[in-house]
Amino acid sequence: MLKEIPSKEDIIDAANIIQEKAHRTPILSSTAINSMFGCTILFKCENFQKAGAFKFRGAYYTLRSLTRDELEKGVATHSSGNHAAALALSAKLLNSKAYIVMPETAPQIKKNAVRSYDAEIYFCQPTLKSRIEKVEEVISKTGATFIHPYDNYSIIAGQATCAFEVFDEIKDADYIIAPVGGGGLLSGTSLSAKYFSPRTKVIGAEPAGADDSYRSIRDGYIHPSVNPNTICDGLLTQLSEKTFNIIKNNVHRILTCSDESVIESMRLIWERMKIIVEPSAAITLAAIKENQIFFKKKKVVCILSGGNLDLNRLPWNS
Amino acid sequence: MLKEIPSKEDIIDAANIIQEKAHRTPILSSTAINSMFGCTILFKCENFQKAGAFKFRGAYYTLRSLTRDELEKGVATHSSGNHAAALALSAKLLNSKAYIVMPETAPQIKKNAVRSYDAEIYFCQPTLKSRIEKVEEVISKTGATFIHPYDNYSIIAGQATCAFEVFDEIKDADYIIAPVGGGGLLSGTSLSAKYFSPRTKVIGAEPAGADDSYRSIRDGYIHPSVNPNTICDGLLTQLSEKTFNIIKNNVHRILTCSDESVIESMRLIWERMKIIVEPSAAITLAAIKENQIFFKKKKVVCILSGGNLDLNRLPWNS
Repeated sequence: MLKEIPSKEDIIDAANIIQEKAHRTPILSSTAINSMFGCTILFKCENFQKAGAFKFRGAYYTLRSLTRDELEKGVATHSSGNHAAALALSAKLLNSKAYIVMPETAPQIKKNAVRSYDAEIYFCQPTLKSRIEKVEEVISKTGATFIHPYDNYSIIAGQATCAFEVFDEIKDADYIIAPVGGGGLLSGTSLSAKYFSPRTKVIGAEPAGADDSYRSIRDGYIHPSVNPNTICDGLLTQLSEKTFNIIKNNVHRILTCSDESVIESMRLIWERMKIIVEPSAAITLAAIKENQIFFKKKKVVCILSGGNLDLNRLPWNS
Repeated sequence: MLKEIPSKEDIIDAANIIQEKAHRTPILSSTAINSMFGCTILFKCENFQKAGAFKFRGAYYTLRSLTRDELEKGVATHSSGNHAAALALSAKLLNSKAYIVMPETAPQIKKNAVRSYDAEIYFCQPTLKSRIEKVEEVISKTGATFIHPYDNYSIIAGQATCAFEVFDEIKDADYIIAPVGGGGLLSGTSLSAKYFSPRTKVIGAEPAGADDSYRSIRDGYIHPSVNPNTICDGLLTQLSEKTFNIIKNNVHRILTCSDESVIESMRLIWERMKIIVEPSAAITLAAIKENQIFFKKKKVVCILSGGNLDLNRLPWNS
């Protein structure tokens, strides 16, 4: 695993390696949405990525950097979301074993996704303490390698390959917007912009009800995420040391968005583009919707980070 | 407008003309769905077509064949579905005017779609008699040209361009499956198979609760569609003289599917492929689901005909 902030060469290496199994996702656009917002929006569709989210990039690249012996002992993480599914699938593809710690309260659909990739689930209480204890227990029992969802330079290099692919195709983007939760995707995106498209400014989109990253960058230290309240279930976590430092130095702005805008943007993408994205992905369009003058006539890339959600519980049906 | 069954050259001509405005839609596949059904399925994604359905192909091509004078007087049709929206958009793009007759009872979402393309809506009672009277009234008042949704060789040639694109990319398909309602898409698909991929057998997929086409082909004459009962709201109509004759001679089989299979197939496409398709499109996968031995190890193209539906009323939420 990488020990330092990923270099240009590290990201190129990651892009080459994940090609083995990851999809090169398409970049789509909608004339209707463009004319609605008065700018040119290019959607990088990570909802079409393996396991339904960009997380596969980081997980697969990180596991590919482990030794055969490490892979045999397996990998462990705590997550109930897209990282867990991505790690489980990556482990399966590399004949390793994934141990996933998730709260008993996690939605059935997420347990099913992880199980469908043959991972072993360990349940904990829905507290930070219980989660960490359970992971440590699993690791001491199995010898598995811990793979943090984002406080890991290899994970960050893997997530950076998404924007690397964007800049391979789009040479003149004014902005690229990535959602920000723990900051893995946003920090990777900002490194790729720095190395491969320095004219493109990087924006983080964050729920107003979980705006710890916004406050952290403003204040210069990491605010914890306390009682986040948002529909964006992938963006509840807080920045880590590694992601904070990269974001602080390479991201232009963090824009916060209301859940109402997120839901409207999500519905717009579903209706106009006929693709399924989760709230945490639609927030990138919500950032444009809430800042239309700022983005007027610009060329903007929105990373649609994933498409995993419970189709029985759509926000406009509740 | 074409006066005879479209020839090979007519379809090539239509393909060239619609290129001006239609999307060349992608062909997608899902390893998960393939392994579930034991065959190779290629989905032609007309849900990404302009106005959200293949209908734009026929409507645009037909309007392009009208004279400047005819376009000035406008075009008329009776439809509350995808043909109405496609005709309205085509008229708008060609500086013509569309007059759409639809029952007062049509869902608001469909009225909105047609209005959003600046068409004029005339309401009728939800009976065949009222519909025809109202269209005649509109035509005599405006001098508009009547564009039948499928009993029209130019419409059929336009719909045929969908399979034309498929066979341009896929040279060795064993089967191609199209939904069948009035038979415009199925008859066009069967002509393209005959001209451009004669080894590919053409299958129609029809709701069991609206199986008039199945019975018509079996019995050798057109059965009317009486009280159809299915979730596939795009497949309620019956074959016409023109579509019946083409289908009779060029379609291998019509397979009927239960609404239950349609809903399961639709959900599978949404969940696994992260794309939005309507029930009338998902029926092509339902045909495979209900006939897995028949399609075992074959290469099968499913035409996903459209993606227009009310997101407030999903079948699994009712």
